[in-house]
Amino acid sequence: MAAANGSAGGVDTRGEFSRIYGVLKEELLKDPAFEFTDSSREWIDRMVDYNVLGGKCNRGLSVVDSYKLLKGDNVLSEEEMFLSSTLGWCIEWLQAFFLVLDDIMDDSHTRRGQPCWFRVPQVGSIAINDGIILRNHISRLLRLHFKGKPYYADLLDLFNEVEFKTASGQLLDLITTHEGEKDLTKYNIGVHRRIVQYKTAYYSFYLPVACALLLSGEDLTNYGAVENILVEMGTYFQVQDDYLDCYGDPEFIGKIGTDIEDYKCSWLVVQALERADESQKRVLFENYGKKDPACVAKVKSLYRELNLEAIFQDYENESYKKLIADIEAQPSIAVQKVLKSFLHKIYKRQK
Amino acid sequence: MAAANGSAGGVDTRGEFSRIYGVLKEELLKDPAFEFTDSSREWIDRMVDYNVLGGKCNRGLSVVDSYKLLKGDNVLSEEEMFLSSTLGWCIEWLQAFFLVLDDIMDDSHTRRGQPCWFRVPQVGSIAINDGIILRNHISRLLRLHFKGKPYYADLLDLFNEVEFKTASGQLLDLITTHEGEKDLTKYNIGVHRRIVQYKTAYYSFYLPVACALLLSGEDLTNYGAVENILVEMGTYFQVQDDYLDCYGDPEFIGKIGTDIEDYKCSWLVVQALERADESQKRVLFENYGKKDPACVAKVKSLYRELNLEAIFQDYENESYKKLIADIEAQPSIAVQKVLKSFLHKIYKRQK
Repeated sequence: MAAANGSAGGVDTRGEFSRIYGVLKEELLKDPAFEFTDSSREWIDRMVDYNVLGGKCNRGLSVVDSYKLLKGDNVLSEEEMFLSSTLGWCIEWLQAFFLVLDDIMDDSHTRRGQPCWFRVPQVGSIAINDGIILRNHISRLLRLHFKGKPYYADLLDLFNEVEFKTASGQLLDLITTHEGEKDLTKYNIGVHRRIVQYKTAYYSFYLPVACALLLSGEDLTNYGAVENILVEMGTYFQVQDDYLDCYGDPEFIGKIGTDIEDYKCSWLVVQALERADESQKRVLFENYGKKDPACVAKVKSLYRELNLEAIFQDYENESYKKLIADIEAQPSIAVQKVLKSFLHKIYKRQK
Repeated sequence: MAAANGSAGGVDTRGEFSRIYGVLKEELLKDPAFEFTDSSREWIDRMVDYNVLGGKCNRGLSVVDSYKLLKGDNVLSEEEMFLSSTLGWCIEWLQAFFLVLDDIMDDSHTRRGQPCWFRVPQVGSIAINDGIILRNHISRLLRLHFKGKPYYADLLDLFNEVEFKTASGQLLDLITTHEGEKDLTKYNIGVHRRIVQYKTAYYSFYLPVACALLLSGEDLTNYGAVENILVEMGTYFQVQDDYLDCYGDPEFIGKIGTDIEDYKCSWLVVQALERADESQKRVLFENYGKKDPACVAKVKSLYRELNLEAIFQDYENESYKKLIADIEAQPSIAVQKVLKSFLHKIYKRQK
């Protein structure tokens, strides 16, 4: 996912957020729960830098931004900045944990412009254990800075539940896309929606806002509607991603899409399957998931026949209208502002 | 690890414990936090049975046994049996999580008499995500059955901290044993002690008792000495394991030891390195970690020269005396009984 929930936080916020990363990493490197040897401390130091840094920190910064909006004040005390940034970094650590392991499962080569961690010499399958340690770092940081707060157990529950949803979405993706023979009959709108919602939307859109709400002293059980809106927004974001993979400008999005070749359960293919007649379905079954450019061209031509570009524009417009209506039904103006700030960062994005 | 902390619980306890597994698994398969498809529910059902069952459940049952001893009553109410068994199963789930991932990292072939999970057709690297889901199941079960208890946050902290210690011990093992060229200079008593203590002792010995203490309403910060005793016992248990790998009766322990061939950081090799003169060290450097039976024989003959059998007997006797003294210094007789029940299950074991 590309330019999700980019931070409105200015240069200062980003600089302070970066500085806090250094503080948190130092704490982890002197964690008394383990007697580090020099080489294990050096390993962790390098592993954390390699995997947690290098992204755009959109998710992490959005905790700080959302917290400011909820507070209704653009200026945070030092402690508020530290705690909101720590939660933001916990989301960045969570993302690093997912990416390190996903890259192994997907047999990927590069990530954020460098070789995937497991491909670095001397790392290999140790990356699996490193993934676990990245996840454990979140628990260590939460304990260090939030133990004793009234919302401490809710914070642990939140990270646990979002991790569970993400791993469940990942399982669904893995067994739908990879298991056994390629079989397009497994692909449909319901499965696509579930994969996207669980694998991406919860941790990318709901989690940052939920962290900001807990930090503001709110009880998440009162925010079911906010959860639904953010999950819907995350789903919309991923549908855009699927659309741009085929119709985006490669110069602009920075990569050449290969979802068709890779047999991805993309929004486009599930829409096509939904609308295709028997002979069109045959075209899909025979050509989807093949490297041959002629096959890819046949799929793209079918997408055109089925008018998927217009169907996407309709989906985007409808989705936007629905989201705005749901957001404006929210009783709190501050919460509306948070939700709109997310929506406006992603609506009609071109990359 | 073989016959660790075997349960004194009779047939009834074991039967009831097994029945509770079925209840917990059903709860997980209808967890409302994920919208299962039929195939994802079937996957989880099979994956959990495959990986959580098939062990001896010594760790899990020891929660129930310890809780009975702390309560001073061999009869538990239905709820007490259910809650203590649930914590016991959480430890079994934790073990399953570690084993699924360790087997991938170690490139192992079999586990508990069947192919390792990642070697099962259609599974492969999906096993990594399955490992994560097994870990998440613990959080789901704790939330379902313990949320709202005064010790809920402590329970989450306990599992998190023990997981962190175990993964850190595993990292130390991986980078000491596998990283780069074979280099015996990295092996010494301090590294061995840390690997064993963190990788095995905390989750196998401390965790079951800590669970029983929390369930009994105790504050773990008052039980630092108990933690130390259990970690010491776990270390002693693993030293026995290393010893039996070389000196145990293969008929009796059920496997032929290959620690020497596998270049393991065994208690025996670190003792040998500690005691060897320069020419003996050369023998070790030249022969340790080689498959050739002649090399293995040279290492074993050096172990004999250095009298490691007698050194182990001394260690075992000293360790036992120290443990008994520390246990008897404990103010609570019930706690003494728990600790002695663990010790007597492992002292002078032959398998």
